[in-house]
Amino acid sequence: MVKARKYVVKDYFQGVPKLSDFEVVEEELPPLKDNEILVKAEWISVDPYLRAYNSQVNVPYDQFSYQVGLVQESKNPDYPVGSRVVSHKGWRNYTIINPKLNTELLETTYKLPDLHGLPNSLGVGAVGMPGATAYFGFLEICKPKPGETVVVSGAAGAVGSIVGQIAKIKGCKVIGFVGSDDKVQWLEKELKFDKAINYKTADVAKALKNAAPKGVDCYFDNVGGELSSVIINQMNVFGRVSVCGSISSYNDNLDNLPKATILQPAVVFRQLKVEGFIVSRWRERWPEAFADIIQWILSGKLKAREHITEGFDNLYKAFTGMLAGENFGKAVVKV
Amino acid sequence: MVKARKYVVKDYFQGVPKLSDFEVVEEELPPLKDNEILVKAEWISVDPYLRAYNSQVNVPYDQFSYQVGLVQESKNPDYPVGSRVVSHKGWRNYTIINPKLNTELLETTYKLPDLHGLPNSLGVGAVGMPGATAYFGFLEICKPKPGETVVVSGAAGAVGSIVGQIAKIKGCKVIGFVGSDDKVQWLEKELKFDKAINYKTADVAKALKNAAPKGVDCYFDNVGGELSSVIINQMNVFGRVSVCGSISSYNDNLDNLPKATILQPAVVFRQLKVEGFIVSRWRERWPEAFADIIQWILSGKLKAREHITEGFDNLYKAFTGMLAGENFGKAVVKV
Repeated sequence: MVKARKYVVKDYFQGVPKLSDFEVVEEELPPLKDNEILVKAEWISVDPYLRAYNSQVNVPYDQFSYQVGLVQESKNPDYPVGSRVVSHKGWRNYTIINPKLNTELLETTYKLPDLHGLPNSLGVGAVGMPGATAYFGFLEICKPKPGETVVVSGAAGAVGSIVGQIAKIKGCKVIGFVGSDDKVQWLEKELKFDKAINYKTADVAKALKNAAPKGVDCYFDNVGGELSSVIINQMNVFGRVSVCGSISSYNDNLDNLPKATILQPAVVFRQLKVEGFIVSRWRERWPEAFADIIQWILSGKLKAREHITEGFDNLYKAFTGMLAGENFGKAVVKV
Repeated sequence: MVKARKYVVKDYFQGVPKLSDFEVVEEELPPLKDNEILVKAEWISVDPYLRAYNSQVNVPYDQFSYQVGLVQESKNPDYPVGSRVVSHKGWRNYTIINPKLNTELLETTYKLPDLHGLPNSLGVGAVGMPGATAYFGFLEICKPKPGETVVVSGAAGAVGSIVGQIAKIKGCKVIGFVGSDDKVQWLEKELKFDKAINYKTADVAKALKNAAPKGVDCYFDNVGGELSSVIINQMNVFGRVSVCGSISSYNDNLDNLPKATILQPAVVFRQLKVEGFIVSRWRERWPEAFADIIQWILSGKLKAREHITEGFDNLYKAFTGMLAGENFGKAVVKV
């Protein structure tokens, strides 16, 4: 008999999620039925969307997110003991899964791709949903051309840091906005962004004008709010904006969102295209992204830094730390 | 020798344009050279973009806009005396034009389409730039499907009133936002909008929820600002927003635009596509729009109401009246 532990969200978050919004519940798992596997979580993901979707799900709910797990028992020949799977079972340490019963796009359990020796944790990061988000959200919506100027906000995060590096690979000039000078250093020195700007201390409009004197062609928006208004107001004719997230407002009530400088004048006169997306849209094509990203990492063109927190009991801490911007690269918890 | 009169804009507008920002200048026109025509303006257009582009042109400048004129003398066999042309020569009564020398898209002089007996003034309205704007801006960007719910702001204007009627022709449910109860009556009774809402007196969010209980699929945005934020926050997954104008902010300084509720959360979670456009993008295809619109007017499916001001000396009054929302349909000046 296996005892599993899971985080249940009891209440709707008000502002920053509180520890008391969660309850860790223990449950006994039944014996496996045909086609089922018992999975022990090894890496659990904390991501901005866990905050954003809280208001759109009925409480109480088991905290979803991606995890990489080891198959410990199996009644499914496709998933033998010792193999690894990626699932959306989230913040729980042991799970019984019937891979054939999860049909919703994001719920699909799939085998961890062959990582060619790279860390398995990448399965919830650069070679998982965040990597696919960066890849398709940027390439499909921004359609960047070599020589164009690309701006990324939230540029030190799991998605933003990959978007900026893909933009470099595609021959673009890349400017990243981040929230600390250490992140500025990391982006410029390690990830080879052409410029990184600390939005908390810089005169954002002026700093961007200096960094992008010819204007901005593509903007990958992770944050929303006033920073995005400033950037969008410096875009060129026929510029493209890929709206991936709005993390600056995730702790706000959806009925009382903040205000920012209007976008319409820039959108009209520069004939901009602004498109939001959820990465499940390209779910069937994720393997394309993974193949390219693995290749780029192996060849040294892309760095997939991880911000690792140890311990199942530290999931809450890792989550709120990520929301506060403590992470460099992908925030992930080692169970 | 012909004496021409024209409006010159001497200063950048501050807020609402002032009469003293303009000067009426008289000039003597030289004799015609080969390929030139002498055009006497009959109908001159006043449009929101005349305000919007003021800050983007160097003063002083001759006030541009579209006009329908009669060819009075001709040294160009393609444009004989007595024929009519549409040009972008704007607020002037007599003009010498060499149609072959105007190569910029919006500057092109072209023959007034055969209006099959409809008023020539339509050449600067429903069968001119505003009609093409409504037709392509709505159909190409919103790509409406029968049964979808379409919202139009600035719905009693030259463009909005046509967009709403095209949406009805395409089998959509149409809701219009306007600034007076008289306009509500006109849209609902005469133009057969499913619903019109006075944004100045209604609880906009609530009124829209009542009118569009299934949410909004397409939004044709003429106004920008908070009204647009409210509408965009009620859009359905994969909704499309065509941003045609931002008239609510045209009297504001571009360096100090107003703030409104941010759009990013709706844009991400509903995966919206928001695109701005300038109608010159489809300049070569304008005749397609004109052919359909003429047919729709002749068959009674589309009403092209005009708000006519008499007299060259009343151009300023017609312009600021249009900016203040006094017009029902297309604002035009009869010279």
